[in-house]
Amino acid sequence: MTRKRPALRSAPNVMALGQLIDYETYIRQWGDNVNFQDIIFKKRDGMELTGEEIKCLVQGISDGSMPDYQISAWAMAVYFQGMTIEETRQLTLAMAYSGDVADLSAIEGIKVDKHSTGGVGDKTTLIVVPLAAAAGVPIAKMSGRGLGHTGGTIDKFESIPGFKVEQTYTDFMEQVNRVKAAVISQSGNLVPADKRLYAIRDVTATVDSIPLIASSVMSKKIAAGAEGIVLDVKVGSGAFMKNAEEARKLARLMVEIGQGAGRKVVAVLSNMSQPLGKMVGNALEVREAIDTLKDRGPADLKYLSLYLAAHMVQLGQKADTFAEAWDKVQQLLKSGAALDKFNEMVTAQQGIIDTKASTYGLPVAPFQVEVASRQDGYISRIDAQNIGHTAMLLGAGRMKKDDIIDHAAGVELLKKKGDKVHQGDVLAILHTSQKSLAEAARLNIYSSFDFSDSPPEENQLILDTITAYQ
Amino acid sequence: MTRKRPALRSAPNVMALGQLIDYETYIRQWGDNVNFQDIIFKKRDGMELTGEEIKCLVQGISDGSMPDYQISAWAMAVYFQGMTIEETRQLTLAMAYSGDVADLSAIEGIKVDKHSTGGVGDKTTLIVVPLAAAAGVPIAKMSGRGLGHTGGTIDKFESIPGFKVEQTYTDFMEQVNRVKAAVISQSGNLVPADKRLYAIRDVTATVDSIPLIASSVMSKKIAAGAEGIVLDVKVGSGAFMKNAEEARKLARLMVEIGQGAGRKVVAVLSNMSQPLGKMVGNALEVREAIDTLKDRGPADLKYLSLYLAAHMVQLGQKADTFAEAWDKVQQLLKSGAALDKFNEMVTAQQGIIDTKASTYGLPVAPFQVEVASRQDGYISRIDAQNIGHTAMLLGAGRMKKDDIIDHAAGVELLKKKGDKVHQGDVLAILHTSQKSLAEAARLNIYSSFDFSDSPPEENQLILDTITAYQ
Repeated sequence: MTRKRPALRSAPNVMALGQLIDYETYIRQWGDNVNFQDIIFKKRDGMELTGEEIKCLVQGISDGSMPDYQISAWAMAVYFQGMTIEETRQLTLAMAYSGDVADLSAIEGIKVDKHSTGGVGDKTTLIVVPLAAAAGVPIAKMSGRGLGHTGGTIDKFESIPGFKVEQTYTDFMEQVNRVKAAVISQSGNLVPADKRLYAIRDVTATVDSIPLIASSVMSKKIAAGAEGIVLDVKVGSGAFMKNAEEARKLARLMVEIGQGAGRKVVAVLSNMSQPLGKMVGNALEVREAIDTLKDRGPADLKYLSLYLAAHMVQLGQKADTFAEAWDKVQQLLKSGAALDKFNEMVTAQQGIIDTKASTYGLPVAPFQVEVASRQDGYISRIDAQNIGHTAMLLGAGRMKKDDIIDHAAGVELLKKKGDKVHQGDVLAILHTSQKSLAEAARLNIYSSFDFSDSPPEENQLILDTITAYQ
Repeated sequence: MTRKRPALRSAPNVMALGQLIDYETYIRQWGDNVNFQDIIFKKRDGMELTGEEIKCLVQGISDGSMPDYQISAWAMAVYFQGMTIEETRQLTLAMAYSGDVADLSAIEGIKVDKHSTGGVGDKTTLIVVPLAAAAGVPIAKMSGRGLGHTGGTIDKFESIPGFKVEQTYTDFMEQVNRVKAAVISQSGNLVPADKRLYAIRDVTATVDSIPLIASSVMSKKIAAGAEGIVLDVKVGSGAFMKNAEEARKLARLMVEIGQGAGRKVVAVLSNMSQPLGKMVGNALEVREAIDTLKDRGPADLKYLSLYLAAHMVQLGQKADTFAEAWDKVQQLLKSGAALDKFNEMVTAQQGIIDTKASTYGLPVAPFQVEVASRQDGYISRIDAQNIGHTAMLLGAGRMKKDDIIDHAAGVELLKKKGDKVHQGDVLAILHTSQKSLAEAARLNIYSSFDFSDSPPEENQLILDTITAYQ
């Protein structure tokens, strides 16, 4: 190893160089990357980064001066060494302010946002936005598209013919003041540091780090400008967090960071061991959301939506207690006020929908292929991740960023966990534009269902609700 | 996290995607980097990579298809998770064969190479090459330039006026057959995978990983073609390995890998807690090497050189036992045969030197600045790393790849550990072309010396000799 820099070995390196070299000389000698290398060393060796160092890091990620290979090495060091709450807070804030930050002050009332860590069949945003808005809470929501089993919230709304997801900030805020709800596509320059960091983490096995996930989510929520934030942290085989302990850690950290940034935050841990509701696919999920707003939706989806919406209503100070908020959202669902709000918002964004027609004017796939059970028994498990993949294969999701989504495609589950089935009963309907895809996906459906002779234990849907860092 | 690939989470990922997606589909979907991402996941999660995976990795490093950011993430995962001996062996071999491999079969006899992991004042190569060659062992040595306190072996030889470090392979082998010794600059395409990997490790805090160091060193030695390899693994504050335990691990691993590749390998652990010899700087070190070949060199440098050379003679089968080899090299030093061999090799490479002149015709710096002791006492410690940096600051080393070395610059120590000094005694002479640099470096010399009232314990020079993986 004669050919190496002798002192770049343990942090802080500047000290190790001896008296003669001051930091400026050091920078001049070793080039501009030296700050970043020091930051990697410190993190690798388990030391806490200062706020200054984290700002320098985020600056380097944003302006491109920190090369990809140093970002990924740092992220891998974080994977192994973790970050303190203070480091995570600093990282989140530095990222939140790395680009545009939405100024929602022109909107009257306490703005409330909602975020889900993602699950199969999760269409709660489509339900909770009109529910909370119907209670008078202003919802100025910026959402994303998605990679994975189905599109993101924006893709789902786009399955409504004519629906516009792009607006000027002025129109956006005007709509929220008038209708109380708007959902638009994320601005180009919101949290650019997270955009770059996430793209690198995504291909370097450094996504699943709790502090990195927390700072990624919360930096976007803080930049999006709402005063109240309800987080739906999914737990189980169909979610990012496979166990409740890890999910609880993530939830607590996000609550802590959000509150530290002056936001009101509630995190709900919800079960994602089987798909939420029965529909997985963009237009299919809009259809199920409308069903739910008509109070004809599946029990799990309805319950979780009401629960999340009630927290939004409470954060938005349209109810004094959770119990009052809970009564209010139930009332708004039953009365049809939430459905009216949904229609109002869709119309405001030029969407054309007929909530009285059988499929509400949504696109319908040319082929519906039934998958019948090959056995009798109780359904003991439905593998959410596998169902999600099946939907993606049918065309509902993007495998790569540039893939085009088939809005009509997806999986419709006719049976859920606990249901008793007989051989020949239809388990699921595959919606697709290519019949051959459905034939291929059939086996995947079989492998997603497990059966038992006796009824399985029921899953608890809401596992925990976190309102403070404990 | 709705915008993430759902299954790229734990290795092996292909399995997690469910039945429907086979590996080819997976590759088609996620792009060409998927192999590399899987390899990072496996290493991150502490799993052993297969030979196939390591070949794929090295191929990706060599042909550029694995991006820098994935290489650095993988290297950081290796830093934390380590590698098994088998993985390290596979990595070494794959790197060794990633570019040109020297074919030394046209050279008669058992070719022996020598490598040092690098230390301050380490000029043993300049002494052991003529010593072993004088014993009849053919030495076809390819060396490098250096970043750090002084140049590499090639830079040191280049401080001899006229010395040519570039030769065709034919001329190189002809010289070894005729003179028994040649030292040339490394070929452009020797171990390209290591070149890229090392350049990335160097700026991502991933240099100090024992398996990565072992594979870097041994891949180059294997590609260089010699049948016997003597490794000088330096231990102490002036070396890469700060403690003997880590150094011993590295040495054993390198011996194991080399032997697995069919080479005879001996690793010597030598002390680098103070500079080796008294000279640090390119021409200064050549001067001290010649002093040593005249049997007028410092005791530590002489002893280590004889010890390494004796192992080379034994590996080259010019002696049956180490004792016999030891007697032989002592004899060759005393008789002047080694000095003659040095002169013969220098002449063969067009170097002009006069080993009878006072500074041997080597370049001499315009300024020699004495640093006198400010106190009485025994020298209890000389900080090798700090002395190395001082030499670099005086112009002897490169801070960046394109820096030009001042061959005459460096530090000459007049006192070593254990010496009794009085206030005013000269501790060191600073050789430089800019007097202002010497003035600046003076304080650095003071901070490098520690004093005590009584004689310090003597350092053991050779700490261990490893001939097999134990």
